[in-house]
Amino acid sequence: MAITVVGSVAFDSIETPAGRRDRCLGGAATYFSLAASFFTDVRVIAVVGEDFGPAEQSVFEARGIDTQGIEHADGKSFFWEGSYLENLNEAKTHATELNVFGTFDPKIPPAYGDSDFLFLANIDPVLQRRVRQATPNAKLVAGDTMNYWIKDHKPALLEVLKGLDILLINDTETRMLAGNPNLVQAARHVLTLGPRMLVVKHGEYGATLFHKSIPKGQESESFRAPALPLDEVTDPTGAGDSFAGGFFGYLASQSELTPGSFRRAMFYGSVMGSFAVERFGTERLQELTREEIDHRFRLFRELTHLD
Amino acid sequence: MAITVVGSVAFDSIETPAGRRDRCLGGAATYFSLAASFFTDVRVIAVVGEDFGPAEQSVFEARGIDTQGIEHADGKSFFWEGSYLENLNEAKTHATELNVFGTFDPKIPPAYGDSDFLFLANIDPVLQRRVRQATPNAKLVAGDTMNYWIKDHKPALLEVLKGLDILLINDTETRMLAGNPNLVQAARHVLTLGPRMLVVKHGEYGATLFHKSIPKGQESESFRAPALPLDEVTDPTGAGDSFAGGFFGYLASQSELTPGSFRRAMFYGSVMGSFAVERFGTERLQELTREEIDHRFRLFRELTHLD
Repeated sequence: MAITVVGSVAFDSIETPAGRRDRCLGGAATYFSLAASFFTDVRVIAVVGEDFGPAEQSVFEARGIDTQGIEHADGKSFFWEGSYLENLNEAKTHATELNVFGTFDPKIPPAYGDSDFLFLANIDPVLQRRVRQATPNAKLVAGDTMNYWIKDHKPALLEVLKGLDILLINDTETRMLAGNPNLVQAARHVLTLGPRMLVVKHGEYGATLFHKSIPKGQESESFRAPALPLDEVTDPTGAGDSFAGGFFGYLASQSELTPGSFRRAMFYGSVMGSFAVERFGTERLQELTREEIDHRFRLFRELTHLD
Repeated sequence: MAITVVGSVAFDSIETPAGRRDRCLGGAATYFSLAASFFTDVRVIAVVGEDFGPAEQSVFEARGIDTQGIEHADGKSFFWEGSYLENLNEAKTHATELNVFGTFDPKIPPAYGDSDFLFLANIDPVLQRRVRQATPNAKLVAGDTMNYWIKDHKPALLEVLKGLDILLINDTETRMLAGNPNLVQAARHVLTLGPRMLVVKHGEYGATLFHKSIPKGQESESFRAPALPLDEVTDPTGAGDSFAGGFFGYLASQSELTPGSFRRAMFYGSVMGSFAVERFGTERLQELTREEIDHRFRLFRELTHLD
């Protein structure tokens, strides 16, 4: 089944211990779309500026991603500049320019109407909610957010959470959203805010899936997928969005969603995140093959398999 | 097969967000012994002072641990005071008093002579090496250390590493020992220093086993065991030593060591670490049963099982 995703399509300038890239294609919706496109049809809603040209367009087209919903506006695209010089697990933001995203009013092309899956990538929760309300027929809705929205736009974010089936955020965001330093307790609290599943991403340590109502002492109702111990991390940008794309893309590719589907989806999320960080920006995702993905899936399986 | 362990038997004063305990029984060899005693015979080498009385002795005896090698010296036992108020993953040390450990000269009782397994718990590497040299017949030797010895006693520590089959340390210690911030590269370097296996403990995220000579692109030669997402962590003291006790105790209980044995040992290590933190000091390990251990082992297995 097809996924509609709304989120940022942007240009990023990134510095890591491995080097520097200026104004490479980025944005949450970009990473998500590329990762999910290996599993199912993907349709993007975003806005770009005049700096988004044929080269950027072709990155989406090469993966068969539907870009009808990418609006071209006057001005410049969303721009982010950040570095990971001291800590590969946490970006230091040097500049964020909303540009055309500042006045974005998302419109959903009629051709997107039969998307059963909706992903609200990291973006202003006011826009996330507007897209959610405009897609009442979506059967499974997942979303992401970040510390900035949790801290300074909580009321709008809480409205978004009410409309989500699955929320994907990291450890720090989970604790911040719940106001509780204990991860399990924080997860339990977040699951009272709307979503019936919470995926907490642990960076290089994998991710944990929490289900609604974890009875005390029954912690096996969560599921943990590992990350591969990585030899070289070139650029962590987009790892979380790529995780989300692999996770949600795999789910959308299944005719039936069983507990096993969600477990495998967690592994595919980890797999896509592990590829994304191997090169700068979207470079690795652009030249990836499904064979490589399934090979690494088997590696991950082996990495934690007991018998 | 029996394990001989050398390390500290101590008194700890601990403060955590859950409360405070003064002068409770602690020390690396204590946690290790209690955890390993659920799997095999354990024999301790340590030194204690006059403050170590029948109450402390009975904690070892109740678990059938051989204490012939615990020397009773004039003066006070090793004492450590620390807190985890800001970060449950890292202790802040307020006081360390070596006391009787300052002049300790470990002696190995003749009855320990047929121990096939030797564990060098965290202690001055000079003492670790002396015990290693006095037990030439040990068939499998594992050990632990800490940042203090890596930083200020590296030459002595490097001598110890040459005599180890397995080293168990945490992420930070691995990076520090190798002088490399990338965990996989650091692990590879540590495996050139003596041990043929390295277990890196990740605290609440589990642990990874690295084998000697990880060929590039063959990262499945490592194995990752999860930790259970914990609802309540009361006191992290001894989690790493309890992991080591579960890991090495399980190995010593096996008639043959296969790759599967090491994988299960990693899970048993995680299981014992997860119990240790549930209450202050050794409280939880003292009243644990093998049934509870195997129940949690199955929970852990379920937590990461894919099919």
